[in-house]
Amino acid sequence: MNLQHIIDETFAELEPRRGCGAVADYIPALANVDPGKFGVALATKDGATYCAGDAGEAFSIQSISKVFVLALALDRHGPRLWDRVGREPSGDPFNSIVQLEREKGIPRNPFINAGAIVTTDHLVDDRSHDVAIDELVALLRKMARDDAVHVDPEVARSESKAGARNRSLAYFMESFDRLRNPVETVLAAYFRQCALALSCKQLAEAALFLAFDGTDPVTREVVTSTARCRRINALMLTCGHYDNSGEFAFEVGFCGKSGVGGGILAVVPNKATIAVWSPGLNEAGTSELGALALRKIAEKTGWSIFG
Amino acid sequence: MNLQHIIDETFAELEPRRGCGAVADYIPALANVDPGKFGVALATKDGATYCAGDAGEAFSIQSISKVFVLALALDRHGPRLWDRVGREPSGDPFNSIVQLEREKGIPRNPFINAGAIVTTDHLVDDRSHDVAIDELVALLRKMARDDAVHVDPEVARSESKAGARNRSLAYFMESFDRLRNPVETVLAAYFRQCALALSCKQLAEAALFLAFDGTDPVTREVVTSTARCRRINALMLTCGHYDNSGEFAFEVGFCGKSGVGGGILAVVPNKATIAVWSPGLNEAGTSELGALALRKIAEKTGWSIFG
Amino acid sequence: MNLQHIIDETFAELEPRRGCGAVADYIPALANVDPGKFGVALATKDGATYCAGDAGEAFSIQSISKVFVLALALDRHGPRLWDRVGREPSGDPFNSIVQLEREKGIPRNPFINAGAIVTTDHLVDDRSHDVAIDELVALLRKMARDDAVHVDPEVARSESKAGARNRSLAYFMESFDRLRNPVETVLAAYFRQCALALSCKQLAEAALFLAFDGTDPVTREVVTSTARCRRINALMLTCGHYDNSGEFAFEVGFCGKSGVGGGILAVVPNKATIAVWSPGLNEAGTSELGALALRKIAEKTGWSIFG
Amino acid sequence: MNLQHIIDETFAELEPRRGCGAVADYIPALANVDPGKFGVALATKDGATYCAGDAGEAFSIQSISKVFVLALALDRHGPRLWDRVGREPSGDPFNSIVQLEREKGIPRNPFINAGAIVTTDHLVDDRSHDVAIDELVALLRKMARDDAVHVDPEVARSESKAGARNRSLAYFMESFDRLRNPVETVLAAYFRQCALALSCKQLAEAALFLAFDGTDPVTREVVTSTARCRRINALMLTCGHYDNSGEFAFEVGFCGKSGVGGGILAVVPNKATIAVWSPGLNEAGTSELGALALRKIAEKTGWSIFG
Repeated sequence: MNLQHIIDETFAELEPRRGCGAVADYIPALANVDPGKFGVALATKDGATYCAGDAGEAFSIQSISKVFVLALALDRHGPRLWDRVGREPSGDPFNSIVQLEREKGIPRNPFINAGAIVTTDHLVDDRSHDVAIDELVALLRKMARDDAVHVDPEVARSESKAGARNRSLAYFMESFDRLRNPVETVLAAYFRQCALALSCKQLAEAALFLAFDGTDPVTREVVTSTARCRRINALMLTCGHYDNSGEFAFEVGFCGKSGVGGGILAVVPNKATIAVWSPGLNEAGTSELGALALRKIAEKTGWSIFG
Repeated sequence: MNLQHIIDETFAELEPRRGCGAVADYIPALANVDPGKFGVALATKDGATYCAGDAGEAFSIQSISKVFVLALALDRHGPRLWDRVGREPSGDPFNSIVQLEREKGIPRNPFINAGAIVTTDHLVDDRSHDVAIDELVALLRKMARDDAVHVDPEVARSESKAGARNRSLAYFMESFDRLRNPVETVLAAYFRQCALALSCKQLAEAALFLAFDGTDPVTREVVTSTARCRRINALMLTCGHYDNSGEFAFEVGFCGKSGVGGGILAVVPNKATIAVWSPGLNEAGTSELGALALRKIAEKTGWSIFG
Repeated sequence: MNLQHIIDETFAELEPRRGCGAVADYIPALANVDPGKFGVALATKDGATYCAGDAGEAFSIQSISKVFVLALALDRHGPRLWDRVGREPSGDPFNSIVQLEREKGIPRNPFINAGAIVTTDHLVDDRSHDVAIDELVALLRKMARDDAVHVDPEVARSESKAGARNRSLAYFMESFDRLRNPVETVLAAYFRQCALALSCKQLAEAALFLAFDGTDPVTREVVTSTARCRRINALMLTCGHYDNSGEFAFEVGFCGKSGVGGGILAVVPNKATIAVWSPGLNEAGTSELGALALRKIAEKTGWSIFG
Repeated sequence: MNLQHIIDETFAELEPRRGCGAVADYIPALANVDPGKFGVALATKDGATYCAGDAGEAFSIQSISKVFVLALALDRHGPRLWDRVGREPSGDPFNSIVQLEREKGIPRNPFINAGAIVTTDHLVDDRSHDVAIDELVALLRKMARDDAVHVDPEVARSESKAGARNRSLAYFMESFDRLRNPVETVLAAYFRQCALALSCKQLAEAALFLAFDGTDPVTREVVTSTARCRRINALMLTCGHYDNSGEFAFEVGFCGKSGVGGGILAVVPNKATIAVWSPGLNEAGTSELGALALRKIAEKTGWSIFG
């Protein structure tokens, strides 16, 4: 299978649709991104990464960071994390608070915003939020083998400024005494993780351990255990796209996590990781062109976790 | 890998816990089942089926039938079925009507009761409900290579008698003009499909096409297309256990569909199908011992769709 | 105060707006009513009734009948009725099923459809539905002093034929074992009570006991106790217009009950009853012109239960 | 009617039940109140106030202040206030956020917490929160003819410290751009209004204008217009006790507003105002003994807005 050819072909077929979907506009840093950006990167276990389009340009990965935060928080706390966050799809949008009221401040899963605030709180633990975010950045730099990975301070500031809904979620959980740290400490870390800037290439490479049972296949470094890795992938599959997760599993068939910056990280166990970027989103906040690209790659490679 | 040994060991390790969970008691036919029943059957592509315990005894497969009905309804109607039923986990219990009100009579997915009533309606189509159910039974007999597969008329009658909640769901959808056939026609077929009686062995064998991209690996018969098969598996993974689907994916890592009779059908693409039966249920209506057995088998085989 | 003048003036001021709002169209018998109909009748304790427009023409009172059914059911069963139906505004539309799921088949109040189905069930009690409806008709004839009051059999048949949503509500409650009679028996009575035909004049006169502490001020006949009468009025105020009840209390300030036939019955304790009819409805199913007429009458008379 | 006798008798009959219900314990200032406190005060238009028990002792009126804030906010902004808050009972608890999500940040009514935060925001307007609260205190002092009326700074501080749920509500509305002032400014005023300390006697007297169409019957001072006064009373009736409002209307038949400090303010148009205080609450946050006292007074006086 000529993967470079598949990536190039996918890119060429979809290039005419650059700009489809609606760019997130709740902060200037996202609203001002060129809607025509489109990048694809596919990383494999032998260390090769196949790229097309704007795959080398850093973008705001936003909620994709929740996957890495979950991995770190689980390694820090183990299964005790699951006392404060569930493992079920919510059936609701990413920022919904309805379920949180019915279930007394326990978010349904770690990939909706409320759940990610809880995992961030566990990642911070008894440390300062700076130390926690530094650890996250260090992990990503090491995995991506690229020290350019960074948090964009301007984006983090904007996220905080426009962060009323996330503040509401956090204070709601605080009212049920579900957080370990003060709301503003947790949110300071949360807004910074959302502001991580990586390129498709860096992202696909940084996530490669998820496709290979927790171990980076290039460096042989064990990032997390096999069991934990599979569980993170399971959560990506069932919850990674909020109330569009079922559709993504149905149409694409890979584990995946979307971000409102227009990125999607896909994990195909034992095969590859794929990162795509195109800023225009569908109603559930998943990159429209990105999801199409992944669907085409699934068809062309014949890969699927379901057959 | 000695699969018979794994099945035997799993059975032996869990046998002391026979009887755990709560047996469904809304109809006598289920309430009177011996709670200590426990069977396991694993079918592979070479035609071998590895069994333990009560794997040869027929039980009421209940909602597991929804998988086969979906396959038939999709082959009959193609993607038009998706105009009347969604593909997302609902986050609610199997018989919830809340989402149905919010989304104007369109069930979230074909595996909650409301959604299965819609797929049954499509299976019946413009035929009598008898002809439709006969087609379903014929498929199962052929796939299981066993003419003993049948609908238990006593269970079907009991289902209908205790069927107020399903009637409520069906009339609710009718009030939005979402059904093609009269409510009582659809329900007659629905209650009969719930009353299908198969053994673990028959069930695992009948479902083998789902593990092999739609084609029975033994007879080479094409039951459904590769794409459709993968999509059915995706729906089993995201929605097969109602508001316990995320947990099942997280803990077991197979595609699966539960029934309140205590059966679970698991599909491990490219590897095997596994049917387990133990009547005691957890709160979401999934067999407690059955889920444990599948988890052990996942651990012992190392199989998972997530790694 | 010249009440005839007030009624005439109100009618004259609003006549140009005849036909506003949307006529209910779920059954032909309602859809075919002339949308320009407009009647007003105000009955006082001295036996005088002041009329304007189409006040003498019979129309389908629909949900207004729920008030009389409640009075009869309470007299038959006393406070035990409240074991199966609540006394709180629901905050939801008249035919919502969401609350019913959350509260396990106990409707929030007797004026939403589910609650009225329960009170009808209690009115039927251990009798046939015919006997129960005959009792209701007899009460209305006596109170209205007019034997022309009747159930329109054509409307009742249409209600039943278009009754999927009400069937859904009834079966839902049956699934929680909340009904005393079989669903179809209860619904037969329910659809017939909805089909009661009265004129504004008949309706205002039939309800006069509600404005005078349970006793018809003309005949001195005690229909219900003072305490019960006040409680029925309280329920009309808080729940009589579904999710528009607050607005009606705020804008009009009378106890009231709406029907999708375009009628509204208003009760002004110690003063009068007022029945208005105009088929066009607002979004909550309250007659648009009818509510305006009542608001004008409130302003012109200075009457309000709130001052 | 000997009102002093009725008050004394009511007090004597209920005194043995002092201490019933559960005292609010989310802040020390409320948790430490003697649960046996019980006061009743009834004020009439001739300037007489009939008292019993602890009617002269100041307590934290909490949400009862929402009535006065609404009156002032309406006088400041007129009906434009209703663009940002509804007038319907919500059917949900006082601090529920579910409805707020479904209705995009518009609270159902001004007496649930979210709605009161909006009216407070309008009261503050373009002023500092100190000036706004000073205006509120001045009004209450004037109406109660007692300069002892004050905001308890210790309670206000505790409210703010324990205010995560209210913060969540406020940030949620902010995320829909529904507030005029910064969240913390609005909340500073909100927490202070909750901390108002009045005795039953002061409270009954301060609210007397509500029973007499907006004009203080003693001083003849016009506090608000007749129409506005009746509308405030209507809102108290339909929404004054959250998801217990229907029950209060049904059982007591007065307009009323409860506070978690154990106070209830009741308004009987054209007759009197009644303030009761007993710290033990029912599940909806209404004083248990207080509601019983009002029910007894209703029975003994024969007063009701419904007959």
